[in-house]
Amino acid sequence: MPPPTVFIVSDGTGITAETFAHSILSQFDQKFRLVRVPFVDSADKAFATVEKISESAVLDGRRPIVFTTLVDSSSNSIVKNSNALVLDIFQQFVEPLELELDMKSTHAVGRGHQNADTEEYKKRIEAINFSLAHDDGQSNRNLAEADVILIGVSRSGKTPTSLYLAMQYGVKAANYPLIPEDFERGKLPTPLLQHRDKLFGLSIDAQRLSEIRNERRPGSKYAALENCRYEINEAEVMMRREGVKWLSSTHKSIEEIATTILQEIKLDRPAY
Amino acid sequence: MPPPTVFIVSDGTGITAETFAHSILSQFDQKFRLVRVPFVDSADKAFATVEKISESAVLDGRRPIVFTTLVDSSSNSIVKNSNALVLDIFQQFVEPLELELDMKSTHAVGRGHQNADTEEYKKRIEAINFSLAHDDGQSNRNLAEADVILIGVSRSGKTPTSLYLAMQYGVKAANYPLIPEDFERGKLPTPLLQHRDKLFGLSIDAQRLSEIRNERRPGSKYAALENCRYEINEAEVMMRREGVKWLSSTHKSIEEIATTILQEIKLDRPAY
Repeated sequence: MPPPTVFIVSDGTGITAETFAHSILSQFDQKFRLVRVPFVDSADKAFATVEKISESAVLDGRRPIVFTTLVDSSSNSIVKNSNALVLDIFQQFVEPLELELDMKSTHAVGRGHQNADTEEYKKRIEAINFSLAHDDGQSNRNLAEADVILIGVSRSGKTPTSLYLAMQYGVKAANYPLIPEDFERGKLPTPLLQHRDKLFGLSIDAQRLSEIRNERRPGSKYAALENCRYEINEAEVMMRREGVKWLSSTHKSIEEIATTILQEIKLDRPAY
Repeated sequence: MPPPTVFIVSDGTGITAETFAHSILSQFDQKFRLVRVPFVDSADKAFATVEKISESAVLDGRRPIVFTTLVDSSSNSIVKNSNALVLDIFQQFVEPLELELDMKSTHAVGRGHQNADTEEYKKRIEAINFSLAHDDGQSNRNLAEADVILIGVSRSGKTPTSLYLAMQYGVKAANYPLIPEDFERGKLPTPLLQHRDKLFGLSIDAQRLSEIRNERRPGSKYAALENCRYEINEAEVMMRREGVKWLSSTHKSIEEIATTILQEIKLDRPAY
């Protein structure tokens, strides 16, 4: 039997529905085949989607699973009549909320994502530009504007984490490397001294760091396990002495690292 | 009355729950105060969360709204007894799926996100590194490895879109600027000629481009409306002549641009 087919049907990008479906489906020891159907914003497109779903049911010899986030109720009822297990993400939650808040929902299509013309969206794009300009200690200008400055040895995960913080949360995240010269001087890089309260450290297991560095520069001193051990140990001693909070990125995804940092630095969270 | 307080309670990062709550809450013309409670992976933490929720109910004079994605059933029942409207994202969908698939879910905590040690995660990190190294035409090396190469005039949205494609989908997205010299020569930049099938264009409204460029270099020729009009027109003529698909980024969020590109280039989608 082929793996079950899963349709993600949305009036917008379908990113919310896909993220959500992914969490639910990962609870099953089973492969799924994923078909995304974004931008379903008319009855015609809803009917075309139903047709696709029916074809898939015939091909697979079993009815597909459909996750929908269609806000428009007529498109929604069209898709709900598919030959499929339809899991309607919105209806299940919007209705109890209407009761609780004693107000009607706006039933506005495509609201799930930030509109490109909002202030909040512009803030995110600005944060991305900031993080790119302040990647790897490239610039000391406007460091005071940073919400957080990540520090750590080369290849400890600073760059992807900074970009994720910017892209997902609109957080201006700079990052600055700790290098052997800093350890010899026994001091934090000078431009960081006045921003101590914004620093957050990333550390990493020496074995893992050596593997990562060897992919870049095989057989180099930079990548040697002994050198990785030395740099990491020096960096951790320095962060402890300077009172900089840090975590180990070894077994953490960028999502987990970013979430932990946000908790620690207690940035104001946006209200919706 | 203060805005309703919304708790996001998760055993992992809470990113799925937050994305989901955001979509639902954006259906209401109402401000909410958001409190995130990630990493609730023990009964103790579940009880502490219930306490926080109760305090908030007293302070606000109304019960909060709670979105949960707790997979562990004992933690889940603790939180469900809160003085709140509890919207249990998992239970509502996992149970019908168990019936449909005729299998039990694994009830594994923290599965929603990719583990940092999986191949898929490594692919995403590799894609981020690739996109950074190939930002703004910085390098022509390994362009053949790119899944897509975005082209367009300066500040048309190529960089954030490339990074988003890499970070969210593990897509190796390079980007390459189209500059006045290319228009004078009337040809695509030479390194791109052998990768025509990977090109995707971004265009933008001239007025909007001029605004964006003026923030960077106020009063410059680069930012002048007349010059923006010229560059955009030339770029669109070139893309049309070369048979490169393109879209206008003017009113689109990076999520919308990325989703559209994925649809167009028909990359193999990962199965879960």
